[in-house]
Amino acid sequence: MLPRGRPRALGAAALLLLLAVGFFLFGGDLEYGRLRGAASLDGELTRDHNRSACLPLRSLLPKCELLHVAIVCAGYNSSRDVVTLVKSMLFYRKNPLHLHLVTDEVARNILETLFHTWMVPAVRVSFYNTSKFQSQVSWIPNTHYSGLYGLLKLVLPDALPPDLARVIVLDTDVTFASDIAELWAFFAHFSDKQMIGLVENQSNWYLGNLWKNHRPWPALGRGFNTGVILLWLDRLRQAGWEQMWKVTARRLLLTLSSTSLADQDIFNAVIKEHPGLVLLLPCLWNVQLSDHTLAERCYSEASDLKVIHWNSPKKLRVKNKDVEFFRNLHLTFLEYDGNLLRRELFGCPSQPPPQAEQRQRALAHLDEEDACFEFQQQRLTVHRVHLTFLPLDLLPSELHDVTLVAQLSVDRLQMLEALCSHWPGPMSLALYLTDAEAQQFLRFVEASKVLSARSNVAYHVVYREGPLYPVNHLRNVALAQARTSHVFLSDIDFLPAYSLYNYLRASIEQLDLSSQRKTALVVPAFESLHYRLSFPTSKAELLALLDAGSLHTFRYDVWPQGHTPTDYARWREAQAPYQVQWAADYEPYVVVPRECPRYDSRFVGFGWNKVAHIVELDAQEYEFLVLPEAFTIHMPHAPSLDISRFRSSPAYRDCLHALKDEFHQDLSRHYGAAALKYLTALQRSRSST
Amino acid sequence: MLPRGRPRALGAAALLLLLAVGFFLFGGDLEYGRLRGAASLDGELTRDHNRSACLPLRSLLPKCELLHVAIVCAGYNSSRDVVTLVKSMLFYRKNPLHLHLVTDEVARNILETLFHTWMVPAVRVSFYNTSKFQSQVSWIPNTHYSGLYGLLKLVLPDALPPDLARVIVLDTDVTFASDIAELWAFFAHFSDKQMIGLVENQSNWYLGNLWKNHRPWPALGRGFNTGVILLWLDRLRQAGWEQMWKVTARRLLLTLSSTSLADQDIFNAVIKEHPGLVLLLPCLWNVQLSDHTLAERCYSEASDLKVIHWNSPKKLRVKNKDVEFFRNLHLTFLEYDGNLLRRELFGCPSQPPPQAEQRQRALAHLDEEDACFEFQQQRLTVHRVHLTFLPLDLLPSELHDVTLVAQLSVDRLQMLEALCSHWPGPMSLALYLTDAEAQQFLRFVEASKVLSARSNVAYHVVYREGPLYPVNHLRNVALAQARTSHVFLSDIDFLPAYSLYNYLRASIEQLDLSSQRKTALVVPAFESLHYRLSFPTSKAELLALLDAGSLHTFRYDVWPQGHTPTDYARWREAQAPYQVQWAADYEPYVVVPRECPRYDSRFVGFGWNKVAHIVELDAQEYEFLVLPEAFTIHMPHAPSLDISRFRSSPAYRDCLHALKDEFHQDLSRHYGAAALKYLTALQRSRSST
Repeated sequence: MLPRGRPRALGAAALLLLLAVGFFLFGGDLEYGRLRGAASLDGELTRDHNRSACLPLRSLLPKCELLHVAIVCAGYNSSRDVVTLVKSMLFYRKNPLHLHLVTDEVARNILETLFHTWMVPAVRVSFYNTSKFQSQVSWIPNTHYSGLYGLLKLVLPDALPPDLARVIVLDTDVTFASDIAELWAFFAHFSDKQMIGLVENQSNWYLGNLWKNHRPWPALGRGFNTGVILLWLDRLRQAGWEQMWKVTARRLLLTLSSTSLADQDIFNAVIKEHPGLVLLLPCLWNVQLSDHTLAERCYSEASDLKVIHWNSPKKLRVKNKDVEFFRNLHLTFLEYDGNLLRRELFGCPSQPPPQAEQRQRALAHLDEEDACFEFQQQRLTVHRVHLTFLPLDLLPSELHDVTLVAQLSVDRLQMLEALCSHWPGPMSLALYLTDAEAQQFLRFVEASKVLSARSNVAYHVVYREGPLYPVNHLRNVALAQARTSHVFLSDIDFLPAYSLYNYLRASIEQLDLSSQRKTALVVPAFESLHYRLSFPTSKAELLALLDAGSLHTFRYDVWPQGHTPTDYARWREAQAPYQVQWAADYEPYVVVPRECPRYDSRFVGFGWNKVAHIVELDAQEYEFLVLPEAFTIHMPHAPSLDISRFRSSPAYRDCLHALKDEFHQDLSRHYGAAALKYLTALQRSRSST
Repeated sequence: MLPRGRPRALGAAALLLLLAVGFFLFGGDLEYGRLRGAASLDGELTRDHNRSACLPLRSLLPKCELLHVAIVCAGYNSSRDVVTLVKSMLFYRKNPLHLHLVTDEVARNILETLFHTWMVPAVRVSFYNTSKFQSQVSWIPNTHYSGLYGLLKLVLPDALPPDLARVIVLDTDVTFASDIAELWAFFAHFSDKQMIGLVENQSNWYLGNLWKNHRPWPALGRGFNTGVILLWLDRLRQAGWEQMWKVTARRLLLTLSSTSLADQDIFNAVIKEHPGLVLLLPCLWNVQLSDHTLAERCYSEASDLKVIHWNSPKKLRVKNKDVEFFRNLHLTFLEYDGNLLRRELFGCPSQPPPQAEQRQRALAHLDEEDACFEFQQQRLTVHRVHLTFLPLDLLPSELHDVTLVAQLSVDRLQMLEALCSHWPGPMSLALYLTDAEAQQFLRFVEASKVLSARSNVAYHVVYREGPLYPVNHLRNVALAQARTSHVFLSDIDFLPAYSLYNYLRASIEQLDLSSQRKTALVVPAFESLHYRLSFPTSKAELLALLDAGSLHTFRYDVWPQGHTPTDYARWREAQAPYQVQWAADYEPYVVVPRECPRYDSRFVGFGWNKVAHIVELDAQEYEFLVLPEAFTIHMPHAPSLDISRFRSSPAYRDCLHALKDEFHQDLSRHYGAAALKYLTALQRSRSST
C-alpha cells in the first residue's frame, strides 16, 4: 500500500535531517565572527568540522540541480592541470555541471577542442576571454606565481553572465576526493548576509610571525584560502563587490608594496573589514598542502577527505610526511582514462549533443558479428584530443617555412630525440596515448635534455580508444595544427637528411612555391635494415651506402610499387627537380602546402592509408616534383602489433579490400570520369594478385 | 567556548538522524513479508529505495569499525576478478577491512603473494581451504557455471571462524561504486529474527514463466540474488543453518533434478520456508546485469549506484543498452593502478606490517639530493606481484625438463609469438606492467592463436613502480615459479635454436646432470643486426651466416668480454661439451638447476645485472660447460629507454660503479679469500678504462 501522503512524510523527514545536520555541522553557530578566532585550527571545533564533513548533504540537494563551476586557466601547463581537476570532479559528480572557463587564447584552443571531443554527457562548458578583464586587475602589483590570472578571480561577479547567481570557484591545482554537490549544498547554509564561502588558511602566513619583518596583508586570524570559493554572485553584485575590493586594495597598496598571494590577499583584506560576508566551510573542503602546512590538524582524524589543494609552488614535489598519500589521490585522476567519464547520469537524463546522439545510433546499428565490425566501430569513434600538451613557443611563422608532421604511439617515443637532431625546424606530432602514457611521455620529455630544449615541437595527444590505430585521423590532427606555409608529411620511423629542413626551405623559395600552388615535393625514401647505421651526411655518402648494400630504396623487396614512380635511377643523376607521374600504390613522402587535402580517416590500422592520400593529391591535380638532394631513411624497428595482426588475418585484409572499394566509389562521385584511372589501376592490381 | 556537554549533544543529533534515516529508508516497514510481494521491482517503493540509497548511513557506523568480507575464489581467472573487486572496494572504503578468502590451491598461491606484496594498510587477509568443505556441498547436483564453488557460500557459517559474528559475502563478479561501510550499516537494521540481508532478483527467472516447462527452484516472488549477502553468522549458527539448508535441499532434490543457480536456489528455497530470516536490501546494492535483466527499473532514476553485478555468463560482453556505462565503471578498477590504494586511513590509524614500517623508515632516511637516490629508492620498493596471471596447465614435471626463464615489459610483447614458436617447452616469464598494460597483455594473448594455444607458459605480472626497470627482481620472480629440474636463463630478445629445447633435455640426461650437480650449461649467443633474418635451422647454417657476415657473436663490437670466455673458435669445431673458465664480465646464457643462486636484485635498470649472477655461480663453484650444438640469437630492436638513459648519464654510471663495489664487498664477506679474484678483476678493468 502506498499512501498518497508519502511525499509529505518524506519532506518532514528531510526537514528533520536538515535540522540535525545543521546542528551537527555548525553547533548552532553559523557565523564566523561568533564561531571562532584564529586558533580554531587547533581547537576541538575543527575536529567536529571534520566529522561533520562525512555528513549527508546530498539529501538536501534538489536532485539533478545544475551546478556551476568557474575556473581561471591560462597557458599550456595550467590546461593540463585543469583536465586533472575536471576528471576528479566528474568521477564523483552526480549532477549536471556547467563549467565557466576564464581562459587566455592558448588555454581556450586546448580546452575547447578537448571538451568538444570528450563529449561528456551533462557537462556544458562556456569560455570567457581573460583579455577582456585583465585591465581590471593589471594595475595591482603582485608577486605571486599565479601572476595576473590569480587576480582575475576578483572580477568573476562581473565576468560571468549576470543571470548566474551562484558559482563554485576553483584553483587549477585542486583535486576532488568527493562529490562536488556536497560542497554546493553549503549554499543552503548561507545566511541572508553571507555571500562568500571559504575554508580557513592552513598556514601561519597571515599571522605575520613567519620571519622578522614579515608583513602580510591583513586578515582575520589565519585568514582564508581562496583555492576553493563559494561565490553568491548576485549578492556580491548587489553589495557593490567591485567597488568594495578596489577601494580596499587601493588603500592598502598605499602602505603595502604588492600582493604576495594575489587575489587571496585582497579577499582577506575585504573580509577583515566585512567579516559578515563569509560562511566558514569545514577544513576538509580545502586541505592545503603548502610548505609547512598545518593541514595535518585537519585531516589526521578525518576518514573522508573532500578536496585537496596543491598550493605550494612545488606542487606534487612538496615535502610533507603524508605527501605520498595525497599524491596517490592526485595520480588516480592524472592517469585516469578520461574516456570512462563519458557516462550518463542515469538519475538526471540530459540531452546529449546532436553528434553524440547520431553516433550512438550509428553504433547501435553495427553488427558485432560482422568481420569488419572493428573497422566500422573505429570509424565512429570520436577520440578525445589534447592539443599542444606541452608548451610551445613558435617563432612568428615565416613565409616559406616547413613543419614536419608525423604521428606515433608510446612504443616509438625513443625516436623523438634522433628526430629532433635531424630536424631543427618546427614539428607537429600527434601522439596516440592512454592518459597514463601521456604522463609517461611528460616524464620522458622532462628527462631528455634534447627534447626539453626544443620549443618548436607541438605534441598533440589523441587518447587511445578502440583496437585499431587511427593512423589517418592522427595525421589530420597533427596536420591541422601546423602553422607554417608548408608541411613535410613524414612518418615517425624515418630520419630525414640533416640538411633536409634548410634544403626544403630553400627549394620552396627557389621554386617560388606559394601556398596556392598545387605542388608536392617528393623526398625520396630509403631504408636501413641495420641498427647501427652511420647516417649519410650527403647524397654522395648515401649513394655509396646504397651501392655497398648497407642501404636500400624503401621497401624495395616487399612493396616496390610504393616508391618506384619516384624513379631512383633518375634521382641518382638528377641535378634539378624533376616531375614524375602518379601510378598505382604510389606513396612517396611529400612536402605540400598546409592547405592540402586531409587524409581519409576511414583507413585505420595498417595498410593503404598513405596511398589513398596520394591518390587524392593526384585527383586534385597536384604535380609531383622529386627533389634531387632530398632524402629520408627508414630506421629499423620491431613490427607494430597492428602490422602483425594485418599479416596474420585474412579478415583484416578483406575489410581493407572493402574499404578501398568504398574509397574508389567516393572518388568517382567527386571527380567523375577523371577518377576512372584509379579504378582501372585498382582492378589491374587485383587481377594480377 | 567548548561546552563539556558537547559530546552528549552530538549523540542526540546522531539519534535524531538515526530516526530520520530509518524512517526515510524503510518508511517504517522493515520486514520483507509486510513490505511487498513479487511486484516490488515495478512499484514506487523501489524508487524510494533508490533514493534512500543516497542516504548517509556512514554516520550510523562506529568510526573505524573493522568490516569483514568473505569471498569464495578458485582458479586463475577468478583470482583476476577478485583483484578487480577488491580494488573497487578499497577505492571507496574508509574502514579497516578483514578479507576472508575461501580458495583452492591455485587461487591461494596467487592471492597470498598478491596481498603480501600489495601491503595495503588496514587490510587483513585470511585464507580458508575449499577442499576442507567441498564434501559438504559436492553431493548437490548443480548445473551453474560457478560449479562447486558457488555452493560453498552455503557453508560459510561453518567455514569461517566461530567468533566471527557478521560478514558481507560477495561474488567475484561484483564491482563496488560506493563505500562498503554503507552496506555494512544495514546490519543495524536487522530485527532480532533476521540473519540474511539480500537484494531482490532483477530477473523473472524464479517466476517460472521464462519458457514452457521452466521449473525453477521455489522462491518468494522473483526471489533474491546471492551475489551480495549480509550474513549474521552467529545467529545462523544458533538457528541451525546447516541443518536447515540441507533438509530443504535434500527434500527438493527428490523432485527437482539439480540446482541451476547453485547456492542461490538453495538460499531462496530456505527463505521461501522462513521468510522472517531476510532483510531486504535496496536494489542498488546489487544491480544485476544478467541477460534480460530488469535492473533498469532499479537504476534508471538512481543518481548513486552502489554495487554492480556481472551475473551473466557473458560477463562484460553482456548485451544491454546501458552496458557501456557499467563497463566504464568496471574498467575504472580493472585498469586502476593498485599501488595507489596503498594509502593509509587517516581517520583510523592502523599498525602497518613490520616490513612496511621498516621500509618506510629506510625510505625516509634516503637523501633525495643524492645522485643515486633513484637506485636506492628502487631497491626498497616492494613490487606488487600477480603470479600466473593466466591459466596454466603444466604436465607433471619430468625429471629432466627445462623451463625457459625471462622477463619483459609491454614493448616486447610482440616477441612472445616468435619465442613460442622456437621453444615448445615450459616457460616462466615475468612481465613488468601497469595494471592497464596487464589488461592490454590479456587482450593480446586472447587475440593470438599461437599464445592462446599454449598452456605451459606461466606469465607473472610484476606491477610497475618507480623509474628503473627492476631486471633482477623480475628474473627472480620468474625463476622462483619454474617447476622443472632445470631452467634456461634467457632474455626476451633472444630466439633459441628451434632444436634447443629437446637438445637441452637430451644433454641433461646424457650428462646425467642431477639438480644437485653444480653445472651451468652455456648456450653460445649470437646476434643479428638484420630484421629479416632467415633463422638458421642447424649449427652448419649458423656458421655459414656467421661467415657471410649476416650474424655475429653477441656484442662482438661493444662488449666482447661478455662472451669471449665461451670461446667461439673452439665451439665451431666442438663435437662434445667442453669446460670454460670464468673471466671478468662474463655473462653467458646458461642452463642451471632450478635451485641455483638468485639474482642480486640491487641491480636495477641497465648494466652488470647478469654479470653479477655469473660471478655468484662461479663463487659457488659451478662448472661452465659449453654445449656444442646449442645456440641462441639476439634479435634487433630499438634500444629500451633505460639503456638510452644509461648511455647518456654519467650519474647513472657512477651509481652502478658504487653498486659494484657494494656487491664485491658482500662477496668478500661471504666467500673470503676465494672472492679475491673478482675484486682483482674489477680493479684491473677499472685501471684499464
